[in-house]
Amino acid sequence: MATPVTIYGPPLSTAVSRVLATLIEKDVPFQLIPIDLSKGEQKKPEYLKIQPFGQVPAFKDESITLFESRAISRHLSKANIDQWVETEGQSFGPPSGDLVHDLLFSDAPVGEALIKKNVEKLAKVLDIYEQKLGQSRFLAGDEFSFADLSHLPNGDYLISSTDKGYLSTSRKNVNRWWNEISNRPSWKKVLGMRKNA
Amino acid sequence: MATPVTIYGPPLSTAVSRVLATLIEKDVPFQLIPIDLSKGEQKKPEYLKIQPFGQVPAFKDESITLFESRAISRHLSKANIDQWVETEGQSFGPPSGDLVHDLLFSDAPVGEALIKKNVEKLAKVLDIYEQKLGQSRFLAGDEFSFADLSHLPNGDYLISSTDKGYLSTSRKNVNRWWNEISNRPSWKKVLGMRKNA
Repeated sequence: MATPVTIYGPPLSTAVSRVLATLIEKDVPFQLIPIDLSKGEQKKPEYLKIQPFGQVPAFKDESITLFESRAISRHLSKANIDQWVETEGQSFGPPSGDLVHDLLFSDAPVGEALIKKNVEKLAKVLDIYEQKLGQSRFLAGDEFSFADLSHLPNGDYLISSTDKGYLSTSRKNVNRWWNEISNRPSWKKVLGMRKNA
Repeated sequence: MATPVTIYGPPLSTAVSRVLATLIEKDVPFQLIPIDLSKGEQKKPEYLKIQPFGQVPAFKDESITLFESRAISRHLSKANIDQWVETEGQSFGPPSGDLVHDLLFSDAPVGEALIKKNVEKLAKVLDIYEQKLGQSRFLAGDEFSFADLSHLPNGDYLISSTDKGYLSTSRKNVNRWWNEISNRPSWKKVLGMRKNA
């Protein structure tokens, strides 16, 4: 989100504060348009187009206008996690899943050209992760989320059980992130369940 | 969620592992029904009723059946946060917001009976928070989320600027939680924006 989003309302308002704290937590650039409630600016026709109830806050980004502070904050929180969940599903998952299948689970002979192609695809994805993980502790910010967790199943097979672990260890930030998420007690329990299955 | 949810599939599967790790992260009781892929159990009619593509995992709780591991995990993650976001909006927000309004912002004389009623309401809500926060670091689990953040705007005015701060300080776990979330840099920045507004 390079273009700043716009938030309307005074920071003294509890509802405006809720959205401001979320924007800061999520590191989303924003501009604050102060609405002077004592002058009734929240009831002016141009504001009512954005917030039909004439209340603060209102929110506008390139694609959507929203009101109700919890809805705005939820939109910001979910969109941020969802984009990384989808990145895992669409960009990290396919090449890593194919590699895990071909190197560990397939009975058919390994096609070296396909392996090479998937390694290159995955390396490009991880180069972007390397940048992102230089800016925040986890993918969706400084909190562990399902966006990180979703990488564990294919990532673990690939990094722990094939000779492609260097894809992680050769990238400083990815490696730090991978060590942190793969050592979570939840994931250790899943690995334990496999042994007993 | 007292009744365990059901997850179908072998833990060796990456997709099943994704859901298992989420269930463990969210501390959701579950039973695992192993589906033997080598025997083709995933193609049997009774399983296809739950998972029409004949793949693992499938998920069932009291109200919903789901397939696709990312959808199942997202459902679990979001429902867990959402229930506490709604608790803030419906149970914590109204009495704390009324108290903040009546004690700090209203020009009208304070109605003592109404203050007392809202303090009692809020105390009951916080007794439940006290229990929950004895089991996990934050409301929706061990990660800070928007469910916690959403309490800051009204909570801060009430705890820092009125004589009702004891509602938090008298409860050990609530007080620990409150000190942690209200000292986050994001919230400090919002308070700074108020001073400059």
